[in-house]
Amino acid sequence: MGGNSFGTLFRITTWGESHGEAVGVVIDGCPARLELSVEDIQKEMEKRRPGRGMGTSPRKERDRVNILSGLFEGRTTGTPICILVWNEDVHSSPYDEMKNVYRPGQADYTYQAKYGIRDFRGGGRASARETVGRVAAGAIAKKILEREKIEVMAYTIELGGIRTEKVDLEERERNLLFCPDKRAAIAMEKKIEEARLRGDTLGGIVEILVRGCPPGLGDPVFDKLEADLAKGLMSIGAVRGVEIGAGFGVARMFGSQCNDPLGQEGFQKNDAGGILGGISNGADILLRVAVKPVPSIHLEQRTVNHSMEPVLLRIEGRHDVSAIPRINPVCEAMVAIVLVDHLLRQKAIGM
Amino acid sequence: MGGNSFGTLFRITTWGESHGEAVGVVIDGCPARLELSVEDIQKEMEKRRPGRGMGTSPRKERDRVNILSGLFEGRTTGTPICILVWNEDVHSSPYDEMKNVYRPGQADYTYQAKYGIRDFRGGGRASARETVGRVAAGAIAKKILEREKIEVMAYTIELGGIRTEKVDLEERERNLLFCPDKRAAIAMEKKIEEARLRGDTLGGIVEILVRGCPPGLGDPVFDKLEADLAKGLMSIGAVRGVEIGAGFGVARMFGSQCNDPLGQEGFQKNDAGGILGGISNGADILLRVAVKPVPSIHLEQRTVNHSMEPVLLRIEGRHDVSAIPRINPVCEAMVAIVLVDHLLRQKAIGM
Amino acid sequence: MGGNSFGTLFRITTWGESHGEAVGVVIDGCPARLELSVEDIQKEMEKRRPGRGMGTSPRKERDRVNILSGLFEGRTTGTPICILVWNEDVHSSPYDEMKNVYRPGQADYTYQAKYGIRDFRGGGRASARETVGRVAAGAIAKKILEREKIEVMAYTIELGGIRTEKVDLEERERNLLFCPDKRAAIAMEKKIEEARLRGDTLGGIVEILVRGCPPGLGDPVFDKLEADLAKGLMSIGAVRGVEIGAGFGVARMFGSQCNDPLGQEGFQKNDAGGILGGISNGADILLRVAVKPVPSIHLEQRTVNHSMEPVLLRIEGRHDVSAIPRINPVCEAMVAIVLVDHLLRQKAIGM
Amino acid sequence: MGGNSFGTLFRITTWGESHGEAVGVVIDGCPARLELSVEDIQKEMEKRRPGRGMGTSPRKERDRVNILSGLFEGRTTGTPICILVWNEDVHSSPYDEMKNVYRPGQADYTYQAKYGIRDFRGGGRASARETVGRVAAGAIAKKILEREKIEVMAYTIELGGIRTEKVDLEERERNLLFCPDKRAAIAMEKKIEEARLRGDTLGGIVEILVRGCPPGLGDPVFDKLEADLAKGLMSIGAVRGVEIGAGFGVARMFGSQCNDPLGQEGFQKNDAGGILGGISNGADILLRVAVKPVPSIHLEQRTVNHSMEPVLLRIEGRHDVSAIPRINPVCEAMVAIVLVDHLLRQKAIGM
Repeated sequence: MGGNSFGTLFRITTWGESHGEAVGVVIDGCPARLELSVEDIQKEMEKRRPGRGMGTSPRKERDRVNILSGLFEGRTTGTPICILVWNEDVHSSPYDEMKNVYRPGQADYTYQAKYGIRDFRGGGRASARETVGRVAAGAIAKKILEREKIEVMAYTIELGGIRTEKVDLEERERNLLFCPDKRAAIAMEKKIEEARLRGDTLGGIVEILVRGCPPGLGDPVFDKLEADLAKGLMSIGAVRGVEIGAGFGVARMFGSQCNDPLGQEGFQKNDAGGILGGISNGADILLRVAVKPVPSIHLEQRTVNHSMEPVLLRIEGRHDVSAIPRINPVCEAMVAIVLVDHLLRQKAIGM
Repeated sequence: MGGNSFGTLFRITTWGESHGEAVGVVIDGCPARLELSVEDIQKEMEKRRPGRGMGTSPRKERDRVNILSGLFEGRTTGTPICILVWNEDVHSSPYDEMKNVYRPGQADYTYQAKYGIRDFRGGGRASARETVGRVAAGAIAKKILEREKIEVMAYTIELGGIRTEKVDLEERERNLLFCPDKRAAIAMEKKIEEARLRGDTLGGIVEILVRGCPPGLGDPVFDKLEADLAKGLMSIGAVRGVEIGAGFGVARMFGSQCNDPLGQEGFQKNDAGGILGGISNGADILLRVAVKPVPSIHLEQRTVNHSMEPVLLRIEGRHDVSAIPRINPVCEAMVAIVLVDHLLRQKAIGM
Repeated sequence: MGGNSFGTLFRITTWGESHGEAVGVVIDGCPARLELSVEDIQKEMEKRRPGRGMGTSPRKERDRVNILSGLFEGRTTGTPICILVWNEDVHSSPYDEMKNVYRPGQADYTYQAKYGIRDFRGGGRASARETVGRVAAGAIAKKILEREKIEVMAYTIELGGIRTEKVDLEERERNLLFCPDKRAAIAMEKKIEEARLRGDTLGGIVEILVRGCPPGLGDPVFDKLEADLAKGLMSIGAVRGVEIGAGFGVARMFGSQCNDPLGQEGFQKNDAGGILGGISNGADILLRVAVKPVPSIHLEQRTVNHSMEPVLLRIEGRHDVSAIPRINPVCEAMVAIVLVDHLLRQKAIGM
Repeated sequence: MGGNSFGTLFRITTWGESHGEAVGVVIDGCPARLELSVEDIQKEMEKRRPGRGMGTSPRKERDRVNILSGLFEGRTTGTPICILVWNEDVHSSPYDEMKNVYRPGQADYTYQAKYGIRDFRGGGRASARETVGRVAAGAIAKKILEREKIEVMAYTIELGGIRTEKVDLEERERNLLFCPDKRAAIAMEKKIEEARLRGDTLGGIVEILVRGCPPGLGDPVFDKLEADLAKGLMSIGAVRGVEIGAGFGVARMFGSQCNDPLGQEGFQKNDAGGILGGISNGADILLRVAVKPVPSIHLEQRTVNHSMEPVLLRIEGRHDVSAIPRINPVCEAMVAIVLVDHLLRQKAIGM
């Protein structure tokens, strides 16, 4: 109950710090006889590589996936799958000076308050590097969903104030920002470059689309599908809001607008975002998350040290201007994990 | 794992259908020797009474709380507390005609798809009546928080397109809409009356404020405080979005704006909403939820019956124009339950 | 996590004290569309009636089952089932004198030590009356097992030093002690009468047989079938030991004796008791539990009061001479619940 | 819910197969700021080394412990601790011939039946090698118990029919069998040698003693301390029975014998084994487990292959004659883990 596990039947436990020996994940409850290769996981890992879409050369963080258990002759055995990625090229010395300083917008202060100790090197456990384990587990979840013809896709619909005007899913795969609108993607790249030069960072919005989800997933009244999805997505470091379907837009709707009429071919619109009463209804599931700007800015910031004395802080080193697009595969992973978990739960009670 | 339990150490399990014998909740993990009376729970129950704030006479749903276990001589004993409220004045016959029809915006279709059976009377398990159990458990959670000087308050900041311009917490207790802005409250009441006459319904936004929360609550990386809060709130029927602190506003912020500087007196602003890295930081916790319009409208709607044949549906009977303000105590309950759960979890590891 | 829930997918939560308002159970995760009546549960409840097999007139504890939720038109709906039994004929005044005394062999001292408060009336939560909820939930579990042609039977193989010499399952239903050996049953009854006259109580051994269990149930390495069975059985008040198959007898076996050879028709003997490596192997599952004598004896006992001063205690009132046979249906219930839970778990991963 | 996690607040997840890349464990919920070194864990690991006490040279299985996360400057950080031991000297070819044969007394048949696939090399996940993770986690649990002055000791009280006549805890550390009776130890060694020469194996009984446990641990009614202990111990491969205090002996006791009188200095005898009503009472906790003979015997055995055709099987290779004494540290580990879990749970509700 340390808080590092997620899911019930398909259950993942991530472990590891940014500058420790390694990071990884144990997946317990993966169905047996699923074909699985290192490459299946590696290809998802590439999508979350630091520096992606930042207009700069990507970092030399190779992040080679090691599957240590649960696999036999290319198939899962139903036993726990441990996946490990070594932390290479780790330079902790630049962090020495931040040892006693609480960086604004980071978890430094709260980890110290909670645990009375913290691994300050690279953010320790609170680093985005922890998502390596999520993405690895998500890659396995996506393999399972594939068999059921369920697709999960995350794409950038807003970044640095630029909003997409359309969703072209093929375009999404053509640019580094996972942006489904070519013109918006170009404008976003420009915003990123501007912010980078100023030493500042940007926020945005990611949308996640699930196609092919059958009706019946979700367990009211607390493990509603949207509730578990909200938890999974809100557990990602930079996420500050989650909405489904019409989302916060429902506040200004009338009931007569918001209800989706049902016809012989199914729902005639989808303001519900594919979930009614906590259970998938067979329509596309549509979620959006608000992503805050990366807190590691190069501008001078006021803060305090461990003795609560005022300090002026300037963070050095290379940091991404935005958590987008790196966060997109993490969102896909969390959604895929929730869906697999509920698929298995639904199989259990379907007698 | 049917999905009807919530929390880990302070764990609630709700049960009951709208038109069954009774609804209720079992609370397991409540600390011993807490003073508790029926009245403590009853007073929270009054806040969720149907018809409240709807400009009409409140319904005669008495909802008397019965505490069946876990209490001895006015104090909790550490054993499970079962709370029961009988379903009185239940008239199921009006629902007979809806037996074979899927009401738009309701869980009729999805419950049938999932379980192959549904108690159609009054929405069955998917009815808002299920929240009786949540509010009863939340009343106990609030008693525990009181001892720790932690306060949870939900108030209406938007309804039918009317947005509050200020937050006056005393005003919030003076009107039936839990609205912290007197002028806005009056405008909202007018909107409600207009919608009611048209047979339509309204959505809105509720904000939840937590004061006095100590730093250290929340268990990264999955049971982050905001992740558990998001799950708890998103599990409430009408909620379609959850945000914390600056919420979706972060999408258009720069990192230099979004980061909250730390000074000797603590955080100098609170765009983080009181949580950093998944752990409370000692500042106020601030959450907002989007509430969809009540789906039971009196206007004619297109839908289908169980044979998937088109049907024109007109829902009769008395229904609230908005889930607000009834949903406010439910939001408070869920937030209080999450906080108590994490308080206990933090006590466990604080060595 | 108060400890009052059991099972993962088929999950029960019992509540209630011996002399409180009522006792009961919530079952969450029961598959939908199972035919279920009050009578299905009531008939199991009769088997655990106090006084059964004690050679005296049975107590007037009617224990009428009330199903408050989760049932619609005679079938389960997949939503939580709350079952309640009122505590009638409760006379708490005889317990007043025991208010400040710790009865030997009872939970008085430990509840006080743990919670700092205890409902001393009739043993409160630690009373055997708590098993009402277990037996009610077990009755539902047995209905599910029936569909799968799985049978669970508990019978008395030792009582007051009398050991059965054979297992005649039909005889088991003919006597009040659930004893599968007529001669032994008569001798046991005599022992009970002797002990009753002396004011003393008796222990014994119950065997539980499962027939028709398919191979594949159990989730190594911690949720092995025998591990979950051991927990379920050891959680019953009077149980002090659990063994499977050859049980403690394995200590004196050679490997060449203990291994069960496999032939074309399956296992050629069954010292494993139907479970290998934590997973059912298709053979009968065979368990035995040691049942301690009822601690409420009428003989004088040395103990202390709340001030830790020595006290001579003589317990009055009517108490059973042995927890057997009342404990037999409780053992059946716990085994049935574990089996259903693992049946559902196995369905979940069988893709 | 794959079954590979144990504990609630102090939660371990083991992973790895006998002949896979590595075996290990993730511990989530370990309190922060605990001093911990590789050596603390390594020394426990030595006690479970294959070949120990078998009168032969110990195998060259070095089993070096690697701590990959959760540790910073020699202290735990409150984040998950991943411990890994590489599988070295793995020779899988001898297992090729057993690829299609179900070894009697092993999990071969049931893993195949459950998962439809199995890693047959060295028993795969069902191998005793899995206990590496348990012992590593147990070492950390023991460090926590040490701070609380709680000691857990497992010792051999019966092996190959030889029963100890006394319990001399110092002697226990002097011989390789963890036997607390010198004369019995010598006789056991002789029995082991005899069985080894015959190609057969031996069973026995291990007793586990807990000293210094405070009153109050355990969460009735399902998570009773003895119930969780029974589950933990019964989840160890070779264990076929668990008893507490007087154990199966209670069957032949009268209540007047079995009850432990309470005096001013505490309990005057300890047939309860330190637990009453599921809660520790402050006396020593005393448990015993029945350990079956190692199923890998060198004598010819009748069995079947995957096509269910009869096969005569003779297992080659070096195998221990008894799971004792290797199982002793595993028993200690499981008991220590349960105690720490309940210590943390008790801290949570102790308000």
